[in-house]
Amino acid sequence: MSVRLSTSNDFSQIIDKYETWMFDCDGVLWQGDKLIDGAIQVLHLLRERKKKVLFVTNNATKSRRSYKTKFDQLGVEAHVDEIYGSAYATAVYISSVMNLPQDKKVYVIGMAGLEEELRDEGVAYVGGTDPADKTLEPFSLETFTLDPSVAAVVCGLDTSINYTKLSKAFQYLTRNPGCRFIVTNEDSTYPSAHGLLPGAGAVSAPLRYALGKDPISIGKPAKTMLDCIKAKVHFNPSSTIMVGDRLNTDILFGQAGGVSTLLVLTGITSESEVTGPNASKIVPDFITASIGDFRSATESFL
Amino acid sequence: MSVRLSTSNDFSQIIDKYETWMFDCDGVLWQGDKLIDGAIQVLHLLRERKKKVLFVTNNATKSRRSYKTKFDQLGVEAHVDEIYGSAYATAVYISSVMNLPQDKKVYVIGMAGLEEELRDEGVAYVGGTDPADKTLEPFSLETFTLDPSVAAVVCGLDTSINYTKLSKAFQYLTRNPGCRFIVTNEDSTYPSAHGLLPGAGAVSAPLRYALGKDPISIGKPAKTMLDCIKAKVHFNPSSTIMVGDRLNTDILFGQAGGVSTLLVLTGITSESEVTGPNASKIVPDFITASIGDFRSATESFL
Repeated sequence: MSVRLSTSNDFSQIIDKYETWMFDCDGVLWQGDKLIDGAIQVLHLLRERKKKVLFVTNNATKSRRSYKTKFDQLGVEAHVDEIYGSAYATAVYISSVMNLPQDKKVYVIGMAGLEEELRDEGVAYVGGTDPADKTLEPFSLETFTLDPSVAAVVCGLDTSINYTKLSKAFQYLTRNPGCRFIVTNEDSTYPSAHGLLPGAGAVSAPLRYALGKDPISIGKPAKTMLDCIKAKVHFNPSSTIMVGDRLNTDILFGQAGGVSTLLVLTGITSESEVTGPNASKIVPDFITASIGDFRSATESFL
Repeated sequence: MSVRLSTSNDFSQIIDKYETWMFDCDGVLWQGDKLIDGAIQVLHLLRERKKKVLFVTNNATKSRRSYKTKFDQLGVEAHVDEIYGSAYATAVYISSVMNLPQDKKVYVIGMAGLEEELRDEGVAYVGGTDPADKTLEPFSLETFTLDPSVAAVVCGLDTSINYTKLSKAFQYLTRNPGCRFIVTNEDSTYPSAHGLLPGAGAVSAPLRYALGKDPISIGKPAKTMLDCIKAKVHFNPSSTIMVGDRLNTDILFGQAGGVSTLLVLTGITSESEVTGPNASKIVPDFITASIGDFRSATESFL
């Protein structure tokens, strides 16, 4: 049973209780290019109260630096080291959790933002935006040379996905002993400006299908993203809250990580999915209509 | 429990019992470009005995006409109307089973052989090898016009697979009411001349994943292929036998169609997969080492 927050006292208590606040962005702080009413004020309030603020997004096409420009454009205070995109978390996972040896590299299916994060974490890679792989010409194993130093295939959303990239990744995963299969996130679709398009999970699906096995997934709801944050930031799960708009990513993610969860209804999840006979089995700890509701907490401070 | 054929009398009895013989090709009649010893003689024997001979392959990149050239090159007698490729079966399914209205069309992810079969069956299509879809440029819904006459998406092995094709197919499947999702076959991999590469099932996996639903599958082991053959050829399942080298395609296919099944060990399936403690749960009616073994049946005829 979720607790529905309503009074200014409810919001004050939640702010008092949690020291670390993890926010999903789209559907929580903004909708597309439109800020959620009150989001800036609430973030400001949390910072005033010395809360640790983190932004946790599954978008793997952008690096943290390029994602920060979105915050800047919307006038939301954010620092690069507060932003956890799945591209960054993937790079951290490879360097800090998987401990990829210096003489090994990864083969990338993904875009410039993923490459940037790998470079910043000191992870050597091939593939990615390499023009040699940006081709629709027939792929032949006869002219392919297997690079024995490739110890993992990393796959994120890649709008230049093609048969050459899939075939090379498949070779590494089946012929390089122990080669790991890592995906930035498993979102089946993503909301483009004009509608839904196939997401990162769809781009990696051919490899999953051809291999007959599931990858290591980094983004929400996988706990791996939280492990990556832990490798960089100290926080106590019992005083941490994840704020999100999607039950099957954000709220599941918080629950898998043992942190509290708050659902807002300004994004993908509607009221009918959390109440009534057809309610989801994924039950957040707290629900409120909008992150802007926390502005009422200031009333009890005054 | 499978019956292991061994004596000339065993082979004679099988030939006597079955009037219609369905053959998988690669691994049964040939291995790559090398004929299985005795295959030509056994096919000749079956034809002499007035048996109906059919060739049933999941290869959807070739039309029957282009597949027949392979038979010709290897000196194996075959007629176009005896060859059932999954491209052809898909076209027959759309025209004869699904009864696609004349004013409707399909969107194709696939190669020239699939297009040729669709044309021959009078199925209108868009996509396929259209140069407009052979692109790695970013895809935007802003410039995409949905064709309301697209009533099905048909997906086969396509080595020019890309994000534009996947995105267009996804739009038709989610925005055109009742749009059907059809795949030629679901093979996870296929054996190229120099090793395994992602197969037709891998190429359609992004759509399956993004939609969260399974397609109608035509090729083996789906019964749909048999239904398509039935629409063109009269045969009695109780006097029909499917000869194949793969348990999870050929033998399952025969079993799903209620025909008898014979496994040969000249292809993908090894002895250890059909005997001993780790034997597959897919049990063919009959097993013999090679189709060439049926030559011994002539001894009992003499």
